[in-house]
Amino acid sequence: MRPLIVTPGDPRGIGPEVAAKALTHRRDLPIVVVGDHAAFAAQALVAGLACERAASLDAAFGRLATQAVGGESACPVIGEPVPVVDPGDGAEPVEVAAIRLGAAACLDGRAAALVTGPIHKARLAARGFTFKGHTDFLGHLCDAPDPVMAFAGGSLMVALVTVHVPLRAVSDALTTAKVLRVVREADRALRADLGLARPRLVVCGVNPHAGEDGLLGSEDAAVVAPAVDAARAEGVEAFGPVSAETAFRMAATGHADLVVAMYHDQGLAPLKLVDFGKSVNWTLGLPIVRTSVDHGTADDIAGKGVADPSSMLAAIDLARKLTTRRP
Amino acid sequence: MRPLIVTPGDPRGIGPEVAAKALTHRRDLPIVVVGDHAAFAAQALVAGLACERAASLDAAFGRLATQAVGGESACPVIGEPVPVVDPGDGAEPVEVAAIRLGAAACLDGRAAALVTGPIHKARLAARGFTFKGHTDFLGHLCDAPDPVMAFAGGSLMVALVTVHVPLRAVSDALTTAKVLRVVREADRALRADLGLARPRLVVCGVNPHAGEDGLLGSEDAAVVAPAVDAARAEGVEAFGPVSAETAFRMAATGHADLVVAMYHDQGLAPLKLVDFGKSVNWTLGLPIVRTSVDHGTADDIAGKGVADPSSMLAAIDLARKLTTRRP
Repeated sequence: MRPLIVTPGDPRGIGPEVAAKALTHRRDLPIVVVGDHAAFAAQALVAGLACERAASLDAAFGRLATQAVGGESACPVIGEPVPVVDPGDGAEPVEVAAIRLGAAACLDGRAAALVTGPIHKARLAARGFTFKGHTDFLGHLCDAPDPVMAFAGGSLMVALVTVHVPLRAVSDALTTAKVLRVVREADRALRADLGLARPRLVVCGVNPHAGEDGLLGSEDAAVVAPAVDAARAEGVEAFGPVSAETAFRMAATGHADLVVAMYHDQGLAPLKLVDFGKSVNWTLGLPIVRTSVDHGTADDIAGKGVADPSSMLAAIDLARKLTTRRP
Repeated sequence: MRPLIVTPGDPRGIGPEVAAKALTHRRDLPIVVVGDHAAFAAQALVAGLACERAASLDAAFGRLATQAVGGESACPVIGEPVPVVDPGDGAEPVEVAAIRLGAAACLDGRAAALVTGPIHKARLAARGFTFKGHTDFLGHLCDAPDPVMAFAGGSLMVALVTVHVPLRAVSDALTTAKVLRVVREADRALRADLGLARPRLVVCGVNPHAGEDGLLGSEDAAVVAPAVDAARAEGVEAFGPVSAETAFRMAATGHADLVVAMYHDQGLAPLKLVDFGKSVNWTLGLPIVRTSVDHGTADDIAGKGVADPSSMLAAIDLARKLTTRRP
């Protein structure tokens, strides 16, 4: 398999710690760390993980290739140091340069997937970073506007049509085109990256009881239903709009593969209830495979050695799973 | 214990069937059925449940008392026919008269709780019934405006501040007074009916991440937080506003006893995902104990013998649990 790239993220947060801890459990995978070398090396030392600075990404890939048995950059690499590439040159924050470098290697096929640790949006904004976060920045780097936030890795998969929108603005933010786009991207990703021949997508309604025939709002009939109809006309096995509590039940009982939720809490409150610590971010709509931890930099516990690496582990495992079908 | 009253609801729906089926499993409880005698008796015959028409509620209570061992209207009544009171006199739909009669017996203390089967709102509206549903009608009968819809019986308990409100109207429908009222009623009910000395209530935010310090909407700080503060000042152990996905995790991991959700899908999508078939309606803010099935009349399967009585069973069991602390 081609290597995975892990970017630990902000060197001042818990990213380097969770990355180092997680990698001690995944020495059977070809992984290159891209980020601040000093921060990662310190955490690797504490975690008992051997690592070694590489001069460039290609040097790191070459090292993985020579480690691998039988000439493939596959397992086992156990016992060999993890290559670390530090792209910092002072021109931009090292965690931003790392994302840029990692995305480029995924785009040109040298790497299989990008697994990102947490960055600190406000800190980056203060240093001139103009993107709202990872996802926007990756959309820019990959020339793919409007990536879709999805979650996988646990028992349920969810894709969100709107994400960080105040509740009162959700109804107006929803359009048939947006719903259709998320349904299409989810269908495409489940086929391409998870190998499902005919993914079944259940689409939540906006309103209670999916509007109850117009008694509880017009958006389900006016906005969501036409998107589902259009998707079905394209051959996508989408159902809905369905009352959110029914939609999640359908997914939990194996009657749907993924839930398309209209807004943040509708999708994430059920998901985190059953898949906490297992489900991680999966960005759809990019030409590359990208997964991410679902926590922030947690500055308050950074450097204390108590950060839990399970989300990073889950993000690495999901990236591995999503790339098994890619050469 | 004092008797429970079960109203099967609409005689043309699945209510009589699920009531008869459920009662075959709960012959150890003193229960009087109030509703259409012919519909219930037919289903009892199919279910193998003995039942006998009583001329009045007091006659039914008297019969239960004579059945009971040791002169108390307690178990066992196994083997004795279930008393059925039919309040139909043509003046109003029998299922409406049944609710009226049952509520009166709970209000004056002859009965311990009211367990309601499904009614058909549109059908009743066409016959002149002016209430939106059971809960409104019971609020009227009990002189208790604005009852609170809550859910219990499974692993989680949830109370809703708004219920059947289109999503776009939720933010404006929320007021500090309404949130505070739901928190107070939940606290009172958990103390009085479940015997919790100091219930811990986690209150969801309105917006994603509970507004993220104002970045994602103002209502969490302006509307919800003051209600939580006021409740705490009254001695209620309320926390919040907390991001909905965190709130449900707190409840699931034993760090809160009940989740106060701001709107329908925020509360019910997580709840139904983990407690489907176990959790049932529990109406707070009434002077009586009332539980209810969480399904409708399901006309499409009525009379086919395939209706699942588990929600009615759960509603009876919850009513039993909620009344153990009442003499």
